[in-house]
Amino acid sequence: MKAVQVVGYHENLRMTDVPVPTVTDPHDVVVRIGGAGVCRTDLHILEGQWREKSGVTLPYTIGHENAGWVHAVGSAVTNVAEGDKVIVHPLITCGLCRACRDGDDVHCAQNRFPGIDTDGGYAEYLKTSARSVVRIDDSLEPADVAALADAGLTAYHAVAKAARRLRPGDRCVVIGAGGLGHIGVQVLKALTAAEIVVVDRSPEAVKLAGTIGADHGIVADGEHVERVLELTDGQGAEVVVDFVGEGGATRDGVRMLRRAGDYHVVGYGENIDVPTIDIISSEINFIGNLVGSYNDLRELMTLAAQGRVRLHTTKYPLDRFQDAVDDLDAGRVRGRAILVP
Amino acid sequence: MKAVQVVGYHENLRMTDVPVPTVTDPHDVVVRIGGAGVCRTDLHILEGQWREKSGVTLPYTIGHENAGWVHAVGSAVTNVAEGDKVIVHPLITCGLCRACRDGDDVHCAQNRFPGIDTDGGYAEYLKTSARSVVRIDDSLEPADVAALADAGLTAYHAVAKAARRLRPGDRCVVIGAGGLGHIGVQVLKALTAAEIVVVDRSPEAVKLAGTIGADHGIVADGEHVERVLELTDGQGAEVVVDFVGEGGATRDGVRMLRRAGDYHVVGYGENIDVPTIDIISSEINFIGNLVGSYNDLRELMTLAAQGRVRLHTTKYPLDRFQDAVDDLDAGRVRGRAILVP
Amino acid sequence: MKAVQVVGYHENLRMTDVPVPTVTDPHDVVVRIGGAGVCRTDLHILEGQWREKSGVTLPYTIGHENAGWVHAVGSAVTNVAEGDKVIVHPLITCGLCRACRDGDDVHCAQNRFPGIDTDGGYAEYLKTSARSVVRIDDSLEPADVAALADAGLTAYHAVAKAARRLRPGDRCVVIGAGGLGHIGVQVLKALTAAEIVVVDRSPEAVKLAGTIGADHGIVADGEHVERVLELTDGQGAEVVVDFVGEGGATRDGVRMLRRAGDYHVVGYGENIDVPTIDIISSEINFIGNLVGSYNDLRELMTLAAQGRVRLHTTKYPLDRFQDAVDDLDAGRVRGRAILVP
Amino acid sequence: MKAVQVVGYHENLRMTDVPVPTVTDPHDVVVRIGGAGVCRTDLHILEGQWREKSGVTLPYTIGHENAGWVHAVGSAVTNVAEGDKVIVHPLITCGLCRACRDGDDVHCAQNRFPGIDTDGGYAEYLKTSARSVVRIDDSLEPADVAALADAGLTAYHAVAKAARRLRPGDRCVVIGAGGLGHIGVQVLKALTAAEIVVVDRSPEAVKLAGTIGADHGIVADGEHVERVLELTDGQGAEVVVDFVGEGGATRDGVRMLRRAGDYHVVGYGENIDVPTIDIISSEINFIGNLVGSYNDLRELMTLAAQGRVRLHTTKYPLDRFQDAVDDLDAGRVRGRAILVP
Repeated sequence: MKAVQVVGYHENLRMTDVPVPTVTDPHDVVVRIGGAGVCRTDLHILEGQWREKSGVTLPYTIGHENAGWVHAVGSAVTNVAEGDKVIVHPLITCGLCRACRDGDDVHCAQNRFPGIDTDGGYAEYLKTSARSVVRIDDSLEPADVAALADAGLTAYHAVAKAARRLRPGDRCVVIGAGGLGHIGVQVLKALTAAEIVVVDRSPEAVKLAGTIGADHGIVADGEHVERVLELTDGQGAEVVVDFVGEGGATRDGVRMLRRAGDYHVVGYGENIDVPTIDIISSEINFIGNLVGSYNDLRELMTLAAQGRVRLHTTKYPLDRFQDAVDDLDAGRVRGRAILVP
Repeated sequence: MKAVQVVGYHENLRMTDVPVPTVTDPHDVVVRIGGAGVCRTDLHILEGQWREKSGVTLPYTIGHENAGWVHAVGSAVTNVAEGDKVIVHPLITCGLCRACRDGDDVHCAQNRFPGIDTDGGYAEYLKTSARSVVRIDDSLEPADVAALADAGLTAYHAVAKAARRLRPGDRCVVIGAGGLGHIGVQVLKALTAAEIVVVDRSPEAVKLAGTIGADHGIVADGEHVERVLELTDGQGAEVVVDFVGEGGATRDGVRMLRRAGDYHVVGYGENIDVPTIDIISSEINFIGNLVGSYNDLRELMTLAAQGRVRLHTTKYPLDRFQDAVDDLDAGRVRGRAILVP
Repeated sequence: MKAVQVVGYHENLRMTDVPVPTVTDPHDVVVRIGGAGVCRTDLHILEGQWREKSGVTLPYTIGHENAGWVHAVGSAVTNVAEGDKVIVHPLITCGLCRACRDGDDVHCAQNRFPGIDTDGGYAEYLKTSARSVVRIDDSLEPADVAALADAGLTAYHAVAKAARRLRPGDRCVVIGAGGLGHIGVQVLKALTAAEIVVVDRSPEAVKLAGTIGADHGIVADGEHVERVLELTDGQGAEVVVDFVGEGGATRDGVRMLRRAGDYHVVGYGENIDVPTIDIISSEINFIGNLVGSYNDLRELMTLAAQGRVRLHTTKYPLDRFQDAVDDLDAGRVRGRAILVP
Repeated sequence: MKAVQVVGYHENLRMTDVPVPTVTDPHDVVVRIGGAGVCRTDLHILEGQWREKSGVTLPYTIGHENAGWVHAVGSAVTNVAEGDKVIVHPLITCGLCRACRDGDDVHCAQNRFPGIDTDGGYAEYLKTSARSVVRIDDSLEPADVAALADAGLTAYHAVAKAARRLRPGDRCVVIGAGGLGHIGVQVLKALTAAEIVVVDRSPEAVKLAGTIGADHGIVADGEHVERVLELTDGQGAEVVVDFVGEGGATRDGVRMLRRAGDYHVVGYGENIDVPTIDIISSEINFIGNLVGSYNDLRELMTLAAQGRVRLHTTKYPLDRFQDAVDDLDAGRVRGRAILVP
């Protein structure tokens, strides 16, 4: 089959021919790829940023946002059957460690991450596990939802966690209305009655957020902290979900937070650098967020099937992988770029 | 190997010779039995009470409270190795359904229950799954902890759930200080600072409870509801954990419950029969409890290793299974009866 | 001022002239009534059902669903000022007992209940406490929201509690789409992405529920349990909220409940009568619900101001109180009857 | 009466004669002081660190850790009566704002803080509110528990919050076994079965911690992070409670934290300065902690009455306030210094 592989760092990806993966373990599931999301992390992989962390041996097939149809299953697989439409949770997890046993898959003590540390989905077929496939509704197409497998899941996980404390009348600031933030706003709208305040540098992104559920939009122009305080009786918001995490976003974001508020860290880049006296005197919390669980993905797929979460995608045939990567790098992609074999 | 089997309902168990179970699935684990608890449920099985529910085909090997040493493992087993001392969670679960993915194993959509609907542990060896074995501390002996696999786990699960709302100064009434209640009191003592009030018909059981953590003991002599009310400013207890569930226990127990209190149902037999007007005007809750999760069992084994939970046992060689069953039936067993191959 | 009073049980209410209440305690708030809901409980009071429970001395002014404008405040009142539009929480609470200190006002150890055990709101003015008045949005009119003070609050409290466990893909059955159920459906829609299944004997009520957020409507015609099971893969719903509680509703409702499900008791009349074996083997819970807290009412008023919760009302001048009572008794009121002084 | 007042910053406190406070509001409570804790914050006040924050007008009476006997009550006070032994919650709260209504007193929108922004307890009598007095058990003496009013309450609040996620087998690192940490360890022991690991620079403090419940003690000698990792399978602890917050404690503390762990900030001084990539890739949380609620204090007093929390104190007659202050400043006080009028 065709597969697009990392053959060297700071080199272009290369399409090659490799054997179709086969079932070797009773829990194996081979998925025929319907769509594979092209993610900024893929660019970072090529730049070598994950070389040590992943420990992967080159060449290998890249691509960690995958959806398609079940092609073959091992003997112990009971949750999907050949032909089922599925989205693929980004991690392969053991089901045996304490974290897995608590439903906290992402902290699985033995997880593998196709596309990062083993063969991924820029290919015709992908091998994963029964524990990683979520059936999707008949009304959904793999290529349309593939990017929800990682970017969408991360947004869902953070926002669903944040939503647990939001009550009617509370305010939730969403910093960054790009890929993840765009999904985050839709999920917030579906899960809570809280007022949603979107802050982004791009006036267009702010405007777009207003059409999918944001109650207030603020362009980050230097006055944005004050604008948030004006909207919140000078007290700040009960929750801030920060999808940016760099360029001063955290410094500003903390100023938008109310006493006893929760600051959800999703985007990354800079440091959280806050005096402990401020943390205790206002009793605020900083909450980390990492991908999401299998059940999170299942719930997100329910919202997608209900039409509550939608994502704009730009599709490329698998052969045009280089165009997709180049377009993403150059900021030319509207929504998410998806490779379709 | 030797195995004690159900050969007919209303017939005695029979010891027979069967092949040692072997690994056929990569997640299989074969355990050499160190101890198998003899449980009242085993008597009910012989009486035919489980015939329809379990759908088991006779003959089969009975025994669902098992501990021992790992004898053989399948190729995908990573959490235990040959020779490890383990206790066996009573259910074999799939790890794929939503309940399993939420850490709520006991509601696994495809569970099997060795000793109830497939071969159990009154034998020299038992076949189970990697998802069902919990390693135990070197200081613990399988025959000493086997009865914690089901009776102990059920008590732990209920009490740990109850404990989440108990604050210092709260009162928790434990109805029934027999096998489960005895463990429940020890677990409450380990997990909370709440005052523990034990109610039992047996003065000896009440007295014994005082030595393992109960702050107050009340003999159920007809005045016991009033005695609980006296201890609780006439208001009742924040939590009642009912390990009896028959003979009028629930009617009395509800009267011991404070406004906004939780009534944990563990023992069973009679009906909860309460006017809805009483449920809403006092805003009380009735909470069901069923066995416990794998992680519950892991936590209970930690308490056992720390010496916080102890259980009196009476051991019988496997050959003397009939004596154990007869002694249990006649009320002659002190603590729990354990078969040792 | 005019006030409508209970002068005897099984007698008609009587309008009389009484002094306008005055501020005597620093926390007192006197409210000029804009609307007072006529509730089925008022009929029960006249029938003498509350005679002993309330211990009230006749004559007294009836009416426990009140909203209006602040007329006078005591010296310690800081949360409202003269002229503010307010809705009145049905209870006057102490703010000192443990329940009050936990935000669980309804279990206040010293609560008073105007309209039930002290003078209520079928009058031109009502005396309450600073702890009982919630400012409402400028866009809301007291007479339009008065019925949310008790009926609406009870529905909100139950449904908001139920919603905490509902995830996308879960199903919530609402039994009874009358006054409370009607609000319950709107609140569920605002707070969750769960599928809402409404069950009611009245085809019109079921149809109406579909226009305010119910995803499925089922007429309770004898086949309704089966219909719910069909909608839920034969497994039942994660949550049932029962606004009926009589006429067999609980027996049917429990059959609609999934393993590990929550059954919320709101309506009352019959007994919950369920075998403990069923409670433990399916590990289900019965959750009591009683009115709601001050903060619950604040949140409900937010939903009302956002237009997410609406209530149909039929208004009567205060002088026509007898018509309102008669119409309610005869089932002639559409929505809720409101007295307007 | 005698009162010790701040008469100028960077000046000594001065004892003077002022009128005994009297009841002027129905919720007022005047307490005859039995003991007033001398706290490091008192030294900071004299250094002028609170001058702007508190906005207090000099002279005023200092002292925010108070206990004694009720001397006089206002007409609306129902929770205590003259002669009752009480400990005084450090804040006077309104009971009307949203935070108060949620049981989150410490974030009261209108709180006052006797000893900081109004007259405190280095005196014979203190005026506070019914909402601030907790009755204590007959077996407790005001002078023995006074220091629990603030230092103890802060430790209790943080540790009780931390304990909610601790399960048997989890590890909780306590950084700092001084005043607050000493209480924190005792509370952890009372509320959880988790293993307690104490880290402190002082070998004596570590040793002392071992006698009150710590399972492991580690002297902070530069190798302490590694020692914690050794104790936790190289993974770190589920929870770290940091009572130090300066001198590099947070940098070290974060390294002791397991994936998905909670870092409780209690002590303060330096910044939390952590890369967002570390927060998200390990999904850790930083939790602020500030004093505690009224109900927290009630619960702590229960633990004190049960003998589960004990505090060493050094008592000084009120006239010797300067000695107490000097001894504290010079590090000569064992346990807490208490002024006794």
